[in-house]
Amino acid sequence: MTPEAKRLVPTRWTEDGEGLIILDQTELPANEVYRELRTLDAVREAIRSLRVRGAPLIGITAAMGVAALARAGANSARSREDGAGDAVTELSVEDVSRWCEYLAEARPTAVNLRWALERVRRAATLLEENTPREVANPLELADALVREASAILNEDREMCESIGRHALPLVVDGATVLTHCNAGALATGGIGTALAPLYLAHSAGRSIEVFSDETRPLLQGSRLTAWELGRAGIEVKVITDSSAGALFGERPPDMVLVGADRIAANGDVVNKIGTYTLAVLARHHGVPFYVLAPTSTIDLSCPLGSDAPIEFRDAREITEGFGPRAAPPHAEVWSPAFDVTPSALITGIVTERGIHTHPLEEALARAVQEAERERDADSS
Amino acid sequence: MTPEAKRLVPTRWTEDGEGLIILDQTELPANEVYRELRTLDAVREAIRSLRVRGAPLIGITAAMGVAALARAGANSARSREDGAGDAVTELSVEDVSRWCEYLAEARPTAVNLRWALERVRRAATLLEENTPREVANPLELADALVREASAILNEDREMCESIGRHALPLVVDGATVLTHCNAGALATGGIGTALAPLYLAHSAGRSIEVFSDETRPLLQGSRLTAWELGRAGIEVKVITDSSAGALFGERPPDMVLVGADRIAANGDVVNKIGTYTLAVLARHHGVPFYVLAPTSTIDLSCPLGSDAPIEFRDAREITEGFGPRAAPPHAEVWSPAFDVTPSALITGIVTERGIHTHPLEEALARAVQEAERERDADSS
Repeated sequence: MTPEAKRLVPTRWTEDGEGLIILDQTELPANEVYRELRTLDAVREAIRSLRVRGAPLIGITAAMGVAALARAGANSARSREDGAGDAVTELSVEDVSRWCEYLAEARPTAVNLRWALERVRRAATLLEENTPREVANPLELADALVREASAILNEDREMCESIGRHALPLVVDGATVLTHCNAGALATGGIGTALAPLYLAHSAGRSIEVFSDETRPLLQGSRLTAWELGRAGIEVKVITDSSAGALFGERPPDMVLVGADRIAANGDVVNKIGTYTLAVLARHHGVPFYVLAPTSTIDLSCPLGSDAPIEFRDAREITEGFGPRAAPPHAEVWSPAFDVTPSALITGIVTERGIHTHPLEEALARAVQEAERERDADSS
Repeated sequence: MTPEAKRLVPTRWTEDGEGLIILDQTELPANEVYRELRTLDAVREAIRSLRVRGAPLIGITAAMGVAALARAGANSARSREDGAGDAVTELSVEDVSRWCEYLAEARPTAVNLRWALERVRRAATLLEENTPREVANPLELADALVREASAILNEDREMCESIGRHALPLVVDGATVLTHCNAGALATGGIGTALAPLYLAHSAGRSIEVFSDETRPLLQGSRLTAWELGRAGIEVKVITDSSAGALFGERPPDMVLVGADRIAANGDVVNKIGTYTLAVLARHHGVPFYVLAPTSTIDLSCPLGSDAPIEFRDAREITEGFGPRAAPPHAEVWSPAFDVTPSALITGIVTERGIHTHPLEEALARAVQEAERERDADSS
């Protein structure tokens, strides 16, 4: 199999364009199972039950789902029209808005989901506003939605590629890399963020070795990162989160690469619990620590990492998360979902605009500005 | 229930002294189940299948098991003699030696197990050497074994108390403490090592709060430490190992208290994987880091921590340790059982001789010397 053939595509259109084929991530790492989604409820269920996960990928899947349903509706309307001469009125902008609202509720706190659905909804509204007829032609409407969903997918894919290209010089031949959680192809429409330079380095023929923290409580590192890197033929070893110290002590990795859930204006990084521990270990051992994330993750309205709200996870993930009871009944648990890595411990932040180094506050503000300017130029 | 009534006794004699009652630790934390052991095979099985675990407790249980079986044999010999006038020859020193060998094989690498069994075996041999008769009287033999096993238990209990008393001034009222794995009552014949000052502080009416790392892969922190502290009424919260960083970042504990599997002559500490990560975090945050262990843990023949051999654990504990598959089939795993914390990161080592601080090399050598001198004085 060529590398291209093995490329991991967790969400794609069906051949007829009227549905989606998703990789069911709840079946990982035991089985690589793909499922066809051809109804609104099926798309919603896939998002709700984490068959599709990772902030960018959820948004992409929802947008593509709405577009696929619109195409299915338009095609069926056209076939009826061809046969019986009915008026083509079965698909309206109101339908699309309703679908979007319904899907957005599947994961209420997922910002990317609302953002992507809002983009397809606006594409539908804009088409209607620019259409002289009373009701938009369903085929035109479906085309507009497919275009917008494809744009979201392609932008995400390009963003991943850009992050990977900027970070590629760091991952030299023979490099050993430690990563945490899953910021890879399974979370995006492309080759991931933190894992992007690893895919590119491997494609370029560089020999690399990756250590993946298992990432308690939900084990995204062992379940997902080890799976997707192993599938691509990249050498990966799973370690318990608490083995990271021993790794630094005995065979320090050349660098730590992690993703980000939110980056504060001053460069503090909010990411999956355990990230901060790695940053402290990296500093203690003089190992570079890089955060890889799109500029959309930078929240200039959040001055410091400590200003970001931190969710706490369900105690049952600790006390009985693996089936057998792992802590006493009624045990108290302190289980934050994220932690804050202060800017001072970060060697650099890699976005689609480049590698940003200290002073991070200015570098990040500039990157966000440039990204906004480019988006405005593209859309005008 | 009074604190005394609630005292955790993981191994004790049966009322008739002819068997053991052990707390079955494989049933924890869900159930507190005690089992009676009245045969050699039952004692062996309990040790082999980790119903009894923790280096000191394994040794104590094996020694007490041999003594209980000897008493049972002597009593039954006596009752037959009373009835039928048979000679009391059913119990020999050779029997005892055979039992000891058989039990020692239950956990081949457990040093304490061999050491404790050797002590009861020697007690039997000494009795025979000092007995004018050809064969030692079974009742005398059983008494000698019970005395030796009781001595092993009592010495361990006193050692725990001493460690606790020396470290007690550190655990002031209102103190928050982070610990790792289980160095508690479930691992010893007394109140543990790292947990000993916590029990004493609680008994003294001090309010303390303990955070317990869950301690992957085998979760001794959430399964055992949280259970035994909670049972004693001490406030304890379980955290994932990777949450320790966030804990230091947001609400740093006043100190870290851990046990040790081996202490090198220079003060480097070999302990459960994850200990080193805590030591680095503690140093980064200026939090004191103490190791609590008996002088018998100090190995003067091991110059540096890096000279100690480190076992690796079975990959399946990571890939499928909790039932459902948690990593891809054939995933590579790097899972050391222990790590090395360099002496420079350790604030102090607390043994039954006191709190030893830098320069640790001299302090530890002196402590070992004093302990040996005291033992020699006791036995002469």
